[in-house]
Amino acid sequence: MLNPADQAFATALAETLPDGVVGPVAPSYLEDPRGLFRGIGQVLARPGTTAEVSRIVRFCAERSVAIVPYGGGTGLVGGQVKPDAPEPLVLSLERMAAIREVDTGGNVMVAEAGAILAEVQAAADKADRLFPLSLASEGSCRIGGNLATNAGGVQVLRYGNARDLCLGIEAVLPDGSVYHGLRRLRKDNTGYDLRNLLVGSEGTLGVITAACLKLFPKPAETATAFVTLASPADALALLTRLGDTLDGLVSAFELIHAQGLRFVGETRPDVRLPFADIPGWSVLVEIGGGTGSNVTERLTLALEKAMLSGQVQDVLLAQNESQRQEFWTVRESTPEANKRIGAISSHDISVPIHVLPEFIAAGQDLVAGFGPLRLNCFGHLGDGNLHFNVFPPNGASRADYLHLREPVKDAVHDLVHQVDGSISAEHGIGRLKAGDLVKYSDPAKLAAMRSVKQALDPKGIMNPGAVLAVSAQ
Amino acid sequence: MLNPADQAFATALAETLPDGVVGPVAPSYLEDPRGLFRGIGQVLARPGTTAEVSRIVRFCAERSVAIVPYGGGTGLVGGQVKPDAPEPLVLSLERMAAIREVDTGGNVMVAEAGAILAEVQAAADKADRLFPLSLASEGSCRIGGNLATNAGGVQVLRYGNARDLCLGIEAVLPDGSVYHGLRRLRKDNTGYDLRNLLVGSEGTLGVITAACLKLFPKPAETATAFVTLASPADALALLTRLGDTLDGLVSAFELIHAQGLRFVGETRPDVRLPFADIPGWSVLVEIGGGTGSNVTERLTLALEKAMLSGQVQDVLLAQNESQRQEFWTVRESTPEANKRIGAISSHDISVPIHVLPEFIAAGQDLVAGFGPLRLNCFGHLGDGNLHFNVFPPNGASRADYLHLREPVKDAVHDLVHQVDGSISAEHGIGRLKAGDLVKYSDPAKLAAMRSVKQALDPKGIMNPGAVLAVSAQ
Repeated sequence: MLNPADQAFATALAETLPDGVVGPVAPSYLEDPRGLFRGIGQVLARPGTTAEVSRIVRFCAERSVAIVPYGGGTGLVGGQVKPDAPEPLVLSLERMAAIREVDTGGNVMVAEAGAILAEVQAAADKADRLFPLSLASEGSCRIGGNLATNAGGVQVLRYGNARDLCLGIEAVLPDGSVYHGLRRLRKDNTGYDLRNLLVGSEGTLGVITAACLKLFPKPAETATAFVTLASPADALALLTRLGDTLDGLVSAFELIHAQGLRFVGETRPDVRLPFADIPGWSVLVEIGGGTGSNVTERLTLALEKAMLSGQVQDVLLAQNESQRQEFWTVRESTPEANKRIGAISSHDISVPIHVLPEFIAAGQDLVAGFGPLRLNCFGHLGDGNLHFNVFPPNGASRADYLHLREPVKDAVHDLVHQVDGSISAEHGIGRLKAGDLVKYSDPAKLAAMRSVKQALDPKGIMNPGAVLAVSAQ
Repeated sequence: MLNPADQAFATALAETLPDGVVGPVAPSYLEDPRGLFRGIGQVLARPGTTAEVSRIVRFCAERSVAIVPYGGGTGLVGGQVKPDAPEPLVLSLERMAAIREVDTGGNVMVAEAGAILAEVQAAADKADRLFPLSLASEGSCRIGGNLATNAGGVQVLRYGNARDLCLGIEAVLPDGSVYHGLRRLRKDNTGYDLRNLLVGSEGTLGVITAACLKLFPKPAETATAFVTLASPADALALLTRLGDTLDGLVSAFELIHAQGLRFVGETRPDVRLPFADIPGWSVLVEIGGGTGSNVTERLTLALEKAMLSGQVQDVLLAQNESQRQEFWTVRESTPEANKRIGAISSHDISVPIHVLPEFIAAGQDLVAGFGPLRLNCFGHLGDGNLHFNVFPPNGASRADYLHLREPVKDAVHDLVHQVDGSISAEHGIGRLKAGDLVKYSDPAKLAAMRSVKQALDPKGIMNPGAVLAVSAQ
């Protein structure tokens, strides 16, 4: 049984910490970007050190008070807001934002959890290194949250997701103890993989306070192309061709449907579309290599062969950095365009790569079965990760179609489950999908997850309701 | 309190399974390659299906009988043999050796746990794909054991260790339930990372029965060179140079000390050494790329620059495949040569890459402090992984120096711990290092590991004594 983080609690907690750590919570900490949840809570803690985080968690554990760890607040599944009583303590890492170290020779950086992703990228860049994690919210999301949710983004194909980019973590466990795991080793087989257990646990098993991150040499040469294709099947064939000939240099392979380009056209007149006539399907592909890797020549050659084989219709190769930026602006405007149009239901899914074309076709039929809805299906094809978002008919009001959210979502997730895909490719479970996790998860895995949660957080204070509970929705 | 797997147990278990699954255990199942442990046990189970594994584990759980999962038996830390009472059931996966599927387009293979690593490699090769996990025992170790111990090897630098090469697993948990986790998704954020919890748990949290493995395009061009250098510091500088210019194409960077070449010379007259005069230090480097990646030209250019800068003394570039094989034979003969010479103490360690040169120097001094011992320090420099093996003086008998094993091991591990390295880079903890895990592990991590073990295996039947217990030695 949990107790609320009320004013009496706040006063008692504040006495154990430096001034300014404990205060009232601002409304922004109780909102989520999609407005699906409304958090409750009065008390905000903003510790400045790992020792303070430890003291706060121990204090809460002793009093059975819930904690909601808070990063940049950009999560899309409600993991950062607790809508149901009792009121939790909101624990923001924003004041622990230091880049503790950049080791260029070892290709390693140590960053505190509150560091904003864009600042982590910039610190790597300053050391002539690349930190490849890249997503739409990189200007405001924080690396601790990226790790807690195992964030993905556009470069997973080549560099992996947040999990793959993390060598070690420092974390405060639910009893307040500190796990000093900032290892920077490429090989370390000393016991169970506690790091990967905490990464992706969405704050339900502990609070990540710092991480040791992998850095990479910056590609000296980059080639970027926008290509149009007849179908997802052709896109898949192109991906295989590029993978076979370009030995892992493909860093982005973004599938874009005509609907996405139309949405960008409607909502962002300032964004220049690369094609006069909007193609049915297009792919934004980027490869990068070291000096002498001839990526432009090799990409051009591969795309020429693809055209000859009929896999590709039209090819635009970026002639300079500004044109490259132009191409990327189109892709990166898509989430904002979707938001302005207003989806009925959004789905962050992944399926085995070889079934992608059949899945997209089946998904289109499925959505059509609900009426004249609009579908924007786009994403990181190379990872089998699709953002499969459903919108009201042109000119119709979103409100008139919100009753379809649940049935559409259920139908899409059922289809994903049938092909052994994932109902959450990169956004996590949070509270939005906690019910679907119970519905679709392997029973043995679910039971093991509950045992692990009970073992590490017996009082259930860490982000209760996230991941392992029926959605509050 | 555990019960022995005695004849009565064997008879009862056999009745629940097809003929031939349960039988007497052959002596070979009770030995480890280094002869450090002597296992006990009378009963061997060799299931042919996951359902049979499930039935066996449930049967043992109901009767509180210990299980030692058995792969190829090649582990070097005694994880595969239980030397202390009560007698366990030895559970060999050898009859579950099928390659269930090879998906060339999706770059995925599904292999059963008993498949021998070399056969997994061959199945990938047959599909014109690469499964990069490669280690000395690949002819007899089994993929289930490779995953249970998170095996490393020579290509981790580019492709990662067993953990990184695994997309999903099927496993039987300690209560006999089956975790159906053969996902082939590149992105899947649906709950805690049960896969990585089982990978590397050395059979103490469950039995891996099958795995979904990553495949890669085969490099179309390969360049291999044997270079001599003055010091590990120069080797490190060369590694950084190659990493910065060859964008992740470096698949092997093996540091070799003169002592290793001398051992090969002494014990393997059939192996041709590449240098007339044995160099103090040398590195075997290999890079591979796709068509048009010009790896030979680029490696040659990089090595020329390294020579000009004095980082490299002498360079032998393999002129053809047979010379490449000759180079690799030297490296791959080292473990066998070490075995024939007979180490007093062997150490599988990793340290942060940037401290490697200082660590090696300090380690040499440390060993010299014990007398005229011989040190063979070699390994996967790119991963910070050294095999740091100590041998008796030339002509002396190993037996006369075995009293130094513990003090030498303790001194080496203390030094590793001081630089925040790992006392087990790739071999795991098993029983040999269970005591050192307690000694050197982060206390919060150790407590969390114990909680997780208790939660998933409350009766403690899965490989008791391995990882989480004081070594039986």
